[in-house]
Amino acid sequence: MKPPPLAEDIEAAHARIAPHIHRTPLLTSRSLDHATGASLHFKCENFQKTGSFKVRGATNAVLSLPQDAAAVATHSSGNHAAALAFAARMRRLAAYLVMPETVSMAKKAAVEAYGGMIISCAPTLAAREEAAARVVGETGATLIPPFDDPRVIAGQGTAAVELIADAPAPLDILLVPVGGGGLLAGTLLAASAHAPRAAVIGVEPEAADDAARGFRTRTLQPQVLPVATIADGVTTAMSPMTFEIMCWLAQDIVTVSEAAIAAAMRQIWERLKIIVEPSSALPLAAILEGKVQVEGRRVGLILTAGNVDLERLPWSC
Amino acid sequence: MKPPPLAEDIEAAHARIAPHIHRTPLLTSRSLDHATGASLHFKCENFQKTGSFKVRGATNAVLSLPQDAAAVATHSSGNHAAALAFAARMRRLAAYLVMPETVSMAKKAAVEAYGGMIISCAPTLAAREEAAARVVGETGATLIPPFDDPRVIAGQGTAAVELIADAPAPLDILLVPVGGGGLLAGTLLAASAHAPRAAVIGVEPEAADDAARGFRTRTLQPQVLPVATIADGVTTAMSPMTFEIMCWLAQDIVTVSEAAIAAAMRQIWERLKIIVEPSSALPLAAILEGKVQVEGRRVGLILTAGNVDLERLPWSC
Repeated sequence: MKPPPLAEDIEAAHARIAPHIHRTPLLTSRSLDHATGASLHFKCENFQKTGSFKVRGATNAVLSLPQDAAAVATHSSGNHAAALAFAARMRRLAAYLVMPETVSMAKKAAVEAYGGMIISCAPTLAAREEAAARVVGETGATLIPPFDDPRVIAGQGTAAVELIADAPAPLDILLVPVGGGGLLAGTLLAASAHAPRAAVIGVEPEAADDAARGFRTRTLQPQVLPVATIADGVTTAMSPMTFEIMCWLAQDIVTVSEAAIAAAMRQIWERLKIIVEPSSALPLAAILEGKVQVEGRRVGLILTAGNVDLERLPWSC
Repeated sequence: MKPPPLAEDIEAAHARIAPHIHRTPLLTSRSLDHATGASLHFKCENFQKTGSFKVRGATNAVLSLPQDAAAVATHSSGNHAAALAFAARMRRLAAYLVMPETVSMAKKAAVEAYGGMIISCAPTLAAREEAAARVVGETGATLIPPFDDPRVIAGQGTAAVELIADAPAPLDILLVPVGGGGLLAGTLLAASAHAPRAAVIGVEPEAADDAARGFRTRTLQPQVLPVATIADGVTTAMSPMTFEIMCWLAQDIVTVSEAAIAAAMRQIWERLKIIVEPSSALPLAAILEGKVQVEGRRVGLILTAGNVDLERLPWSC
């Protein structure tokens, strides 16, 4: 295993990617503060380029490649694929994206709009890994994994660097969605340097609770399949590297129900008037469901992405 | 008829209301700029307090009342009612809102959350006016009309003052939705002082085209009933005062199809990742439908409000 990144790698990543990404705003809501008794600061990565924080890690990884790199590749069903295609175009590298054939037309169109080349495969992890290995073998592309990579983790940590810097007063709690754990690991490392008194808490769907089980047992856990959650951005299991950083630095990992995710997503849409995808709603869901006590505290919540399918919303319409 | 407001009344309104409202952001979208060949600047009144620009006019009117005023009243099916309840609470005035009994629970709840008292009536203009007159007679409340009032028009004009000031370079075109014409009139007066070379163009649904007919014929026109448009914020006919200012200063009034409104709304949701209601989509709809030529121009578009019913979206889901 490569060594995990250090806080200074996140600083370096931020300097490297800042010219290429948006410094996304923090939003607040008087009505949500009133309802929760807390001071909530929402870091709006839904406004980020490509519509998700994933562009931070992908851009850091791509800009860290040696000069003679010619192509990059990954397998992803969603935001990391678009982020990598975007980052590759910046350096005029070819990008090969292995995507399950079940992925929506909208997600494929986003990747193609950034000039990425899509290789379709069957919707299983084995088929994805096999196709990615074949692409790497045939093209000489460098594999940029979605989270199990120190450059990617360092890039994802830059969102928390900005959140901590832009909050009007020191944050007591940071709430972060957990899928593969790249954002959580980066946030933990960033907070350890920039907000050492803040408690960083990961939030998962009950239906995809590998991180919570792993945190409790201190043993890396597989995801139990099939995963049935509307938060389709966080269905992946953690990797050894993200798991190690979680066990080392996280305050807690909590899980939330599907109903709480849908309700929190709707609150964000209605109160903040912004579009976020279901995974982004996990932190607020943890508060609404009482899984994290926030009364009187200053809380940072990372809204990870906004690439929602507007024709399949988690409420009747 | 009271005299219409002057540009300096808008300045005074801005100074009066600025401490109580949000200075809403301007958003841009590289992909929408690319698609239209223009430089588009979206003034995000969907993020405004109460979720719409209406709070500007209502606040200016309420803060302009004499010290001994005790109550305010209006009739409205939507955003002006919530705005007036909000503004009245600021001065601890009672607010009586006559609303058609067909209005959604969500809209009533918003008014009640600001402490407004709702008087239900039949969903006809005659019933609304009769109920409002009765409320004014019984309570001594001051009637604050939704647009036919110089204080309200001056307040609405403050959105354009901010849009013009915050744009990074002088705007060539301002596109404004037209319902009763309060926002259009305020924008025209603001632009005449702050952006005299900008062309201000009003945009209406084809299905509610009283302003376009009036502009062409130079005669105030009634709305042809029933009005069938998803842009439910702009179904009202203009008043003599807003009509006069339109004829005096507007460059043009254009109309757009229902399909264009829905498509533009969806583009705003997907590209800008923000929630706007259908009326807010009129300016972009005019561009997408080719009703306004914007290539190479800097364009300001006012996104008027974000109070959409998430269970009734104008696309299948």
